[in-house]
Amino acid sequence: MRFISFARDNVSGIAIKSKNDVYLALDQTNPKFPGDLTSLIKSGGEALTAARRSLETHGFPLDLTDCILLPPIAEPEKIICVGLNYVDHSHEAGFEVPDYPTLFARFRSSLIGHGAPIRRPNESEQLDYEGELVAVVGREGRRIPKGSALAHVAGYTVFNDATLRDYQFRTPQWTMGKNFDETGAIGPQFVTADELPPGAVGLRIQTRLNDVVVQNANTSQMVFDVATLIALISDAMTLRPGDLIVTGTPSGIGMARKPPLWMKPGDVCEVEIEQIGVLRNPIEKD
Amino acid sequence: MRFISFARDNVSGIAIKSKNDVYLALDQTNPKFPGDLTSLIKSGGEALTAARRSLETHGFPLDLTDCILLPPIAEPEKIICVGLNYVDHSHEAGFEVPDYPTLFARFRSSLIGHGAPIRRPNESEQLDYEGELVAVVGREGRRIPKGSALAHVAGYTVFNDATLRDYQFRTPQWTMGKNFDETGAIGPQFVTADELPPGAVGLRIQTRLNDVVVQNANTSQMVFDVATLIALISDAMTLRPGDLIVTGTPSGIGMARKPPLWMKPGDVCEVEIEQIGVLRNPIEKD
Repeated sequence: MRFISFARDNVSGIAIKSKNDVYLALDQTNPKFPGDLTSLIKSGGEALTAARRSLETHGFPLDLTDCILLPPIAEPEKIICVGLNYVDHSHEAGFEVPDYPTLFARFRSSLIGHGAPIRRPNESEQLDYEGELVAVVGREGRRIPKGSALAHVAGYTVFNDATLRDYQFRTPQWTMGKNFDETGAIGPQFVTADELPPGAVGLRIQTRLNDVVVQNANTSQMVFDVATLIALISDAMTLRPGDLIVTGTPSGIGMARKPPLWMKPGDVCEVEIEQIGVLRNPIEKD
Repeated sequence: MRFISFARDNVSGIAIKSKNDVYLALDQTNPKFPGDLTSLIKSGGEALTAARRSLETHGFPLDLTDCILLPPIAEPEKIICVGLNYVDHSHEAGFEVPDYPTLFARFRSSLIGHGAPIRRPNESEQLDYEGELVAVVGREGRRIPKGSALAHVAGYTVFNDATLRDYQFRTPQWTMGKNFDETGAIGPQFVTADELPPGAVGLRIQTRLNDVVVQNANTSQMVFDVATLIALISDAMTLRPGDLIVTGTPSGIGMARKPPLWMKPGDVCEVEIEQIGVLRNPIEKD
């Protein structure tokens, strides 16, 4: 199942991609509205299947030119980002390849949906792209064994972890450079795990800036795969439905180029993950 | 005004400290319940004042032995923690004194209230205390000038940023060591800003482990005071009502002692900030 979250005339709704590529939608004003994706994921897999039936039976064809696409998961409790999770990227960024996942956080205030502008703030010109796979937690757990970790994943989506590099490295912690408003692009599609290879392994992940390929890798190249991340992260913290695990970016970032390649107003950045979709965002001044 | 959040028989409520030190309470089952502190803070200063009147007029005296104290702010969008914000602590931790705030995040899943046990997980013995002042954001803003920053603070509370030191330093980012479940103690009192010196400066902050003073400093010793933190953090991100800014710990941490002093099951840790209150938590096995 492939869902999107949207808003039209300030009313939000969800839609499912039907077999003929039409999105069938219901919004919050409709009595058959099954709930937003966060609440469906919290209710479990059956709720997503029931929502699909409701959307396919009662939904209207959504005109995508007529709405804005929202982050598919509206209010995650946690946005857990993994740094240095591809070997080549660790090297280009000047770090050792880690023997343990390097985690940082985004706050919800940084998130935007597909099509919304990534904001280049006045404070910095060093706006860099980072294409990433997101695993969306579907089932609560703590100290989850690696062997059963993938049963805790509801599905996957795409992320552009756009980063202000000077702010990222201005202090020992990266938080500020990762949390400028409207720099964390996510979506558009939330793809349930059953549509993809287990752990979303073996998928090409590609970032394009103004149609030029700038990152090109495969999710199989992760240092810590999705199951390992879930096992290790949940040693510390309870994972809850709707939590996002943003699994890290491959090599090719703008900072590592000579001269550096920064995103600037007027650019368009796309992140594509095979079988999941394309996340496309223009860059605009703040 | 001094508020607490509590639960009794699985029903939550809020209470205000009255002049004779009785807490006057209303819970969610009462038609006069004014709402939880998060929603009151979001509604603005007048809502807190109206809640006070309602609690003083209709509230029942709360028996504190009969309820559990909750984190005063239940669902902050952001928990922004500041590292290295006292000069002596930067030195003892082996870092330079920063020229810019070092930020990391806690997730809500790590929070507990006053009286609840801080959990020493099986994974680590290096559980350390960190007494800290929390500024609670009361008014939304981005790029807030330092001169008007304190108008964005609704009030203050107390934090014990209990940390697993080996996990904190296992990777370049501190997130994992700062986010074990039930390690972030907060409360019990939310004290409105008008009760305290501007920016909560000049207040003694003291941590005691089993009644022995282990941290003893003054909030005036912060490298970046509350107004400066709000100005600089909001350069990057929109601050929203209910967001918590956890302003960093002074020197005296257990890791810097020889031999190191770790908190262990059976210990009791207290953080006291003058004019705000005492946050007390036992340490228990996970």
